Amino acid sequence: MVFWKRLFSSDTIAAPVPTQFEGDFVEFFDEGANQSRFFFSTDREIDLYELEELCDSVGWARRPIRKVKKALEFSFLVVSMWEVKGNRRYLIGFARATSDHAFNATVWDVVIHPRFQSKGFGKALLKYLIRKLRNEDISNITLFADPQVVDFYRRLGFVLDPEGIKGMFWYPD
Amino acid sequence: MVFWKRLFSSDTIAAPVPTQFEGDFVEFFDEGANQSRFFFSTDREIDLYELEELCDSVGWARRPIRKVKKALEFSFLVVSMWEVKGNRRYLIGFARATSDHAFNATVWDVVIHPRFQSKGFGKALLKYLIRKLRNEDISNITLFADPQVVDFYRRLGFVLDPEGIKGMFWYPD
Repeated sequence: MVFWKRLFSSDTIAAPVPTQFEGDFVEFFDEGANQSRFFFSTDREIDLYELEELCDSVGWARRPIRKVKKALEFSFLVVSMWEVKGNRRYLIGFARATSDHAFNATVWDVVIHPRFQSKGFGKALLKYLIRKLRNEDISNITLFADPQVVDFYRRLGFVLDPEGIKGMFWYPD
Repeated sequence: MVFWKRLFSSDTIAAPVPTQFEGDFVEFFDEGANQSRFFFSTDREIDLYELEELCDSVGWARRPIRKVKKALEFSFLVVSMWEVKGNRRYLIGFARATSDHAFNATVWDVVIHPRFQSKGFGKALLKYLIRKLRNEDISNITLFADPQVVDFYRRLGFVLDPEGIKGMFWYPD
């Protein structure tokens, strides 16, 4: 069972955070058997090959590293989730959002390593991301949900087709 | 009847464009009775009060100018549509898109002045915007459509809920 301590109380670093991990780290705890420690970060300097590995683990199609790098650079918010074991950290979750920095944000590329799925990690990641966007005064947080995760997002407060507004994707002729 | 000459052939300025209007202007012609001339632009230096007037004309809720300014600054693409009469230009259409500059774009704030609705102007504006995004190698063009404009976007090649992917909006508890 995972307990989210301090998750919504502060963005400051909870001591002792390993000093070799720079960035906006927020600690939360897994009080289960494995004694791992977990962190969020909004630092966008992520090893892109480690991110690729995470995306591979959930079966996503490979994307050119060059384009992923650009996408991270121009996303409004990048959130990563790390497991810390000894002096190493492992990327176990990721999400990002594009935005006009004023009204709208759209969440993309939400991924949790299969080993950590269905344990509350995805929920914690999304809550952290939503809180970050709200702190930036973004009022309209949107996403496009695959059918199998619609209920997951619904439980987080996302509403399907509100007032009949429909998600649409452009396809070339 | 409006004819779209040169619309998809070139981004260069079609002579004679009034030199007082700077920016990336693309001329197209209205060969109807009023002899007006029309231009697209991607210049984001738009008079925000003129934009507000355009949004008023379609009954949108007022938004703080300060936030609109920021949203335009941080949009990936801003497209405006102008009617030119003598040495004055009038804003008659607008749309913008957020993006990660790599994979995804989301279209927001599509508006056509009521005087120019149902005459092909909206279609021309969206086609121009799509072409611009495609030129930037953006493969995933998305939007959230109000129920009354779903068919408009469908005719432009937008697909509703492709593969069951659903648009969702977050609402505070």
